[in-house]
Amino acid sequence: MKKTKNLKVIFLGGVGEIGKNMTAFEYGDEIIVVDAGLAFPTADMPGVDLVIPDVTYLRQNKDKVKGLILTHGHEDHIGAVPYILREFKIPVYGTRLTLGMVEHKLQEQHITDAELIPISNKSVVRLGKFVCEFVHVSHSVAGSVAVSITTPVGVVFVTGDFKVDYTPLGGEIMDLNRIAEIGKKGVLLLLSESTNVEREGYTMSESVVAASIDRIFMEARDRRIIIATFASNVDRLQQIIDIAVKYKRKVAISGRSMLNNIEIAKKVGAINYNEKIIVDIDKISGIPDKNLLILSTGTQGEPMSALTRMANGGFNKVKIGKNDTIIISGSTIPGNEKDVYSVINNLYRLGAQVIYDKIAAIHVSGHACREELKLIHTLLKPKFFIPVHGEYRHLKQHADLAHMLGMSYDNMVIPDIGDIVAVTGRKIAKAGTARGGGVLVDGLGVGDVGNIVLKDRLELSSEGILLIVLGMDRTSGTISSGPEIISRGFIYTGAETSFELMDELRSVVRSALKNIDFKDFSMNQVRVSIVKAVRGYLGRKIKRRPMVLPIVYES
Amino acid sequence: MKKTKNLKVIFLGGVGEIGKNMTAFEYGDEIIVVDAGLAFPTADMPGVDLVIPDVTYLRQNKDKVKGLILTHGHEDHIGAVPYILREFKIPVYGTRLTLGMVEHKLQEQHITDAELIPISNKSVVRLGKFVCEFVHVSHSVAGSVAVSITTPVGVVFVTGDFKVDYTPLGGEIMDLNRIAEIGKKGVLLLLSESTNVEREGYTMSESVVAASIDRIFMEARDRRIIIATFASNVDRLQQIIDIAVKYKRKVAISGRSMLNNIEIAKKVGAINYNEKIIVDIDKISGIPDKNLLILSTGTQGEPMSALTRMANGGFNKVKIGKNDTIIISGSTIPGNEKDVYSVINNLYRLGAQVIYDKIAAIHVSGHACREELKLIHTLLKPKFFIPVHGEYRHLKQHADLAHMLGMSYDNMVIPDIGDIVAVTGRKIAKAGTARGGGVLVDGLGVGDVGNIVLKDRLELSSEGILLIVLGMDRTSGTISSGPEIISRGFIYTGAETSFELMDELRSVVRSALKNIDFKDFSMNQVRVSIVKAVRGYLGRKIKRRPMVLPIVYES
Repeated sequence: MKKTKNLKVIFLGGVGEIGKNMTAFEYGDEIIVVDAGLAFPTADMPGVDLVIPDVTYLRQNKDKVKGLILTHGHEDHIGAVPYILREFKIPVYGTRLTLGMVEHKLQEQHITDAELIPISNKSVVRLGKFVCEFVHVSHSVAGSVAVSITTPVGVVFVTGDFKVDYTPLGGEIMDLNRIAEIGKKGVLLLLSESTNVEREGYTMSESVVAASIDRIFMEARDRRIIIATFASNVDRLQQIIDIAVKYKRKVAISGRSMLNNIEIAKKVGAINYNEKIIVDIDKISGIPDKNLLILSTGTQGEPMSALTRMANGGFNKVKIGKNDTIIISGSTIPGNEKDVYSVINNLYRLGAQVIYDKIAAIHVSGHACREELKLIHTLLKPKFFIPVHGEYRHLKQHADLAHMLGMSYDNMVIPDIGDIVAVTGRKIAKAGTARGGGVLVDGLGVGDVGNIVLKDRLELSSEGILLIVLGMDRTSGTISSGPEIISRGFIYTGAETSFELMDELRSVVRSALKNIDFKDFSMNQVRVSIVKAVRGYLGRKIKRRPMVLPIVYES
Repeated sequence: MKKTKNLKVIFLGGVGEIGKNMTAFEYGDEIIVVDAGLAFPTADMPGVDLVIPDVTYLRQNKDKVKGLILTHGHEDHIGAVPYILREFKIPVYGTRLTLGMVEHKLQEQHITDAELIPISNKSVVRLGKFVCEFVHVSHSVAGSVAVSITTPVGVVFVTGDFKVDYTPLGGEIMDLNRIAEIGKKGVLLLLSESTNVEREGYTMSESVVAASIDRIFMEARDRRIIIATFASNVDRLQQIIDIAVKYKRKVAISGRSMLNNIEIAKKVGAINYNEKIIVDIDKISGIPDKNLLILSTGTQGEPMSALTRMANGGFNKVKIGKNDTIIISGSTIPGNEKDVYSVINNLYRLGAQVIYDKIAAIHVSGHACREELKLIHTLLKPKFFIPVHGEYRHLKQHADLAHMLGMSYDNMVIPDIGDIVAVTGRKIAKAGTARGGGVLVDGLGVGDVGNIVLKDRLELSSEGILLIVLGMDRTSGTISSGPEIISRGFIYTGAETSFELMDELRSVVRSALKNIDFKDFSMNQVRVSIVKAVRGYLGRKIKRRPMVLPIVYES
């Protein structure tokens, strides 16, 4: 063979955008995939439940795909696993906690034949020519790993999501020694996450949160305490339960995902407590406020979450009052601000004390800030660098950071979604694109909601729809029935104030049809005339442009 | 008269929510109104252009209303003035810059008979029994004032929006001496804004921004510079123009609101520069990059703004490239994050350098942080306190701050929208409610979009609409035409993958009608049967619930 084989890195998600992380590594006739996450829909995707990566490239190379490696158990890294496993019968590697979370998802979607293979810190897995070693890292979910992949062209180090926490709650510190060793032996390519590249300094340790929460327990000695936090942050849950025990409180758990995650974490040994301290949420009425802690979901103000229902007074099991201290231990994901603040406002209105991240150190990020990123670059000293896990601005700033540390821009690629990057021992460059957009999931439909449907939904939501229903006598060319006007989301036609406008619309329709030559007309012509006349009239009269749909039948 | 007259404070906006600030003060048969702002629609109001206060209470007391006082020229304080003046022929008081901005709005809405009366720092205006004195404050728009209102029950001090800036760019420092004097003479009631009550310490001075921008100009000496900032922050615009002059750059202005505001500010003397330094945005092609500054709108990623169009490559006058340094000098208003970041990402993709508030001190808030709020409370020493300008959580925390400074909770009221608070020399208490919701403006329609319409719009946007059109022969009770299925925003019926579902839906409709007793049926019964069958089928088959609208005609 004349052509030197190269390593291809295919970015199916997680770059140039937030969420649905998925990166494929291809060498010769083998592909391994790292992570298979989902993204939550943005405001321009109304009605969509979630977005998964477009795996057309993998589908086209189906026989090559050897395995799926998961770095940790967050939705944006494992959420698409069930969809992938329906199509690809490949082994899945992850830590026991990560696989526990995956297993739960698979059960929900009735997938029973998955091959889930547990790994841990220092495990080595051989997948064809790829030899993968796992390295423990700190993150906001326990059981997170980075992956060092030895390939025929050199070592590729994938950080996954991480932060450097010297006093983690889980006990084990990120394996910096092993990372240093790997760096010393020589790293060809680094893929590092970029989430907090805009932030100077270091991310605070998880133990800061524990200290804050302990202090709140001390100060709120006689009050009932309710804590909402991320169900996946098992280390934090462990710490909260330990603090509850210390202050002689029973723990009631509310919210399905919280119950599920604690059960999974307990099964794999990621969380430990005496069952005696747990009390059923249905049986808390006899327990004095000062002896009770309620653990709840709802940090994002999700409408159906326990905390939101408590805030609205609609949660019968827990009625909020003046003796409640409520801690929301989580950051607000952009886009959820209004919902979260609405919950906080309503809890305050009910007289409770509310403590949230803006006013106390009760949440820390799970991602590395600039100094931590510099540490990783410096320990690994890669020849090439690709910033990942971030919008384009994060990736660009991360590239600038690497440049500041001495790397040439020629040795980096800033990828966008769908990009294929080719790497040899001497060179890195973009080498084409794969289909990289997202696939929308709505209900049980995967991929059947596309751009036309979304455009219609947005148009419908902004101005509503106006149906003009009429029957036409084809022989006489006259309106035999109607026009009847039906509106949804435009104006409320039942209101008396709308009657005049409706009357005028009906005459506008009638006049529009007068101009049609009825000896030689098509139904389509009738429809076009109606739409044009109605939209023109409404634009002039009230400056609105609802979707106008004429329904014309012959009678 | 037996009953002692009290002062009523009616909260028609700005409390318990963000935006559309409006407070009415009523004593006997006189009412004065402070501010008349608008709010921008939230995500649950699709298609709505803006929200104005519900002034039903003022309408019911129309003869009492003596005047409208404006504290400053931001939309959330003046945006509803045209709507108010259409109904209430009352004098409007504000500083010259504020009134200049109002005048522009009135012209747009063809209101020509407004009585606009300019005031300035230390002006005193008598409106019946209310004597209003204006006190200059610092804020992110020049010409901002607080109002000290002497009423028959005592002095009411309304801060408006403010911060304490010891080195303001506009030259004049907030009149703390006068505030101290007013405090010394005795204040019955303080209404203070609460926006930044969650933030410790002091808000940074506007001069910090000037220093940052100067440094960027120095570093980007050979590059073209583009600055997007709030068009209303004329002090900042002045400073930016001065820096441009210093670095020998011509200034091109892009964006209609920027041009308008600079013109207004220039007319009233709030901004000063030599016309020679301005260059028409259409004539910049001959000017070297290092001699040009472009001032632009678009800090919020507004789709039609100059900056957004530059970022998308769709602005012919300015093509972005590697030699551009773009400064976005403004904070992102919650809800606009996605749009703003999309602009930043795209500018980076075009090779430009982008500097925004997360990575440099190029924007400061216009609102007082906790230490500044404490200063005002301490200088004024009011007997009673009502926190305003904030969501409920801000108001609650501001009340807690006042309590920490020594005030009893009995001397405060935390108002919610629509609340009426009664104040005498000895007592403050809630005393009823007025209609306080918002009135939605959509196109030229004011108030015709209500809850039913919004509910429909949200339902349409989340799942789309499905029309089932069929003709029925009443005598035979059979379907004579159709069923035809028309969908918008549900699935794209033109796609081949949809054909099967469409076929099945048609049989579902036909079967549903088989069960109807055709000897004795109503059209309504037919419609209900269709909706039930179709929704049931879709729920089971693909877990979606589009709006189903049957159109049944007789034929």
